[in-house]
Amino acid sequence: MATRNAAQKRAQAKVEYNAFLAGCPSRQLLDRISDKWVVLVLCALGDGPMRYSEIARLLAGVSQKMLTQTLRSLERDGLVTRTVTPTVPVTVTYELTELGLSLHQMTRGLRDWAQANMGEVLANVEKYDAQEVLP
Amino acid sequence: MATRNAAQKRAQAKVEYNAFLAGCPSRQLLDRISDKWVVLVLCALGDGPMRYSEIARLLAGVSQKMLTQTLRSLERDGLVTRTVTPTVPVTVTYELTELGLSLHQMTRGLRDWAQANMGEVLANVEKYDAQEVLP
Repeated sequence: MATRNAAQKRAQAKVEYNAFLAGCPSRQLLDRISDKWVVLVLCALGDGPMRYSEIARLLAGVSQKMLTQTLRSLERDGLVTRTVTPTVPVTVTYELTELGLSLHQMTRGLRDWAQANMGEVLANVEKYDAQEVLP
Repeated sequence: MATRNAAQKRAQAKVEYNAFLAGCPSRQLLDRISDKWVVLVLCALGDGPMRYSEIARLLAGVSQKMLTQTLRSLERDGLVTRTVTPTVPVTVTYELTELGLSLHQMTRGLRDWAQANMGEVLANVEKYDAQEVLP
């Protein structure tokens, strides 16, 4: 039997990824990308490369620790690239990769959905909470 | 000036929802729906109504507390309905609302993306981790 390398094994296993299974790596990946900061960072970078400071300013309320952690995780998964330009002080720029751009389509949809249906959801929450206090 | 009711006020405010703003309710909504259990529950219910026990079985590894909490949050936002049938023991069935179905399109995309691109992400992670240990 011929020896298969890791890439071939992965290619063969491709059809078997199933996020419903607790041990499947796609469950962990889904956990990493199902995160409001990931969604907002990808939305921000959808318009083109941005400096760290620009992202931090746009994502009001994000802590430096959380943003750094989010960007590092996105870089590790190959969704963004990080470029350091030796200016004084150094400029750090983030940009979506092609893979990141394909995920951006999904996460932008999620963000747009939240903004578009906010009124209806608020009305539903009001109704639900009113029922809860009925005798 | 005419008195406006809450619905009218919300309708007028609709265009102003912006998840980049920390205080915007759409930021909180995005936080609620950017969650792997929400994504997986909506994926599961995309095929039709399901009993609580069926969802629990399909979503391997979810705790009862987490699943109950997730379903309650989805019900409060008006994304699923909960129907109790007085059998012995009682049957509790969950079903997507129309609003839930519209979100399902997005979350299914996210799950499918994770499963389809798992191989490429694993390769990226390997490469990143190998670079990290370079001198």
